[in-house]
Amino acid sequence: MNEERLRNQLNFLIEIDKLKTIYRKTRLADNSRCETVAEHSWHFSLMVLLLHEYSPTELDLLRVLKMALIHDLVEIYSGDTYAFIHHNAQQVKENEKKAAIDIFNILPQDQCSELLSLWNEFEEQKTFDSIFANAMDRFQPFINDCYLAEKQDHSRDISQTQMIERMSLVKKASAELWTYIQKKIYDNYPDSIK
Amino acid sequence: MNEERLRNQLNFLIEIDKLKTIYRKTRLADNSRCETVAEHSWHFSLMVLLLHEYSPTELDLLRVLKMALIHDLVEIYSGDTYAFIHHNAQQVKENEKKAAIDIFNILPQDQCSELLSLWNEFEEQKTFDSIFANAMDRFQPFINDCYLAEKQDHSRDISQTQMIERMSLVKKASAELWTYIQKKIYDNYPDSIK
Repeated sequence: MNEERLRNQLNFLIEIDKLKTIYRKTRLADNSRCETVAEHSWHFSLMVLLLHEYSPTELDLLRVLKMALIHDLVEIYSGDTYAFIHHNAQQVKENEKKAAIDIFNILPQDQCSELLSLWNEFEEQKTFDSIFANAMDRFQPFINDCYLAEKQDHSRDISQTQMIERMSLVKKASAELWTYIQKKIYDNYPDSIK
Repeated sequence: MNEERLRNQLNFLIEIDKLKTIYRKTRLADNSRCETVAEHSWHFSLMVLLLHEYSPTELDLLRVLKMALIHDLVEIYSGDTYAFIHHNAQQVKENEKKAAIDIFNILPQDQCSELLSLWNEFEEQKTFDSIFANAMDRFQPFINDCYLAEKQDHSRDISQTQMIERMSLVKKASAELWTYIQKKIYDNYPDSIK
């Protein structure tokens, strides 16, 4: 056995435990607290597993699942960026690129290359697999938020226009899901934010 | 679009959000709190992704990942059972079997059948895919626990004998990982518990 290889893999597996300590803005469906990035990554993976049939193009499910599981590991070093506040997009991108190299470099070279390449593909949103993955990354918090809106547990501070802009990527991934989402946005989000 | 199908899939995706509210005994690597079952499922999936090369038999990685993502969904209805306390194994099994039917039945019939069948395969531990998945399910809390033991952050209340018994399933999944684990058990767990 290559002991150094296993040691690097296990060091990586311990390092990524930190994803359980980073909290997002999305609230759990019972509204008790915000979800962690690790929980989001799991929920997003299940969503890929169950909804990939809505992609009009056949996807490589294993690749999409890998993207879902690893897409947010960079946040261990760069932190979570909330989609609905103004931020310097270029700076965020640069920080995340650096974080991706730092985190995946803990792994043996072949695994580092594979995951870094998948992470870059996810970020670039040029392939069908990555477009679908990005759509589900946005759809997961959306279903929690709509569920809470419908239970009237939670006041919406995002307008229809903002949400349409955020979710419009789903159009590219699945016309069927986009139809569903549009209706939900008009039902659950206010015309404007005071 | 079949609206009922999508509605059932989304109802399921909301129902499983509850896995973020069930806490295990395993502590995070920073010892700040116990992990949730959703976080465990994500971490376990990453472990499958990175360590499947240690299986001497080629695995169907997509199937093993699906098992990792869904294996603990039953705990939404049956709760988490700590491995190191005495419990009525037959009763736990029956409760979990009933819970599996209840949770997967929310899904459209074809997806319910697929996931129920994968869950049963995971539980029965007869195929290579399921043996490897079960080994990783036990290895994930083990690496967190050993990491804390080595930092001396956390007193061990499990003996070597108990841990050898719990982890010995890994022998069937990977001789290489079993060699590593045995050494870690003798290094980090007491001969006996007072």
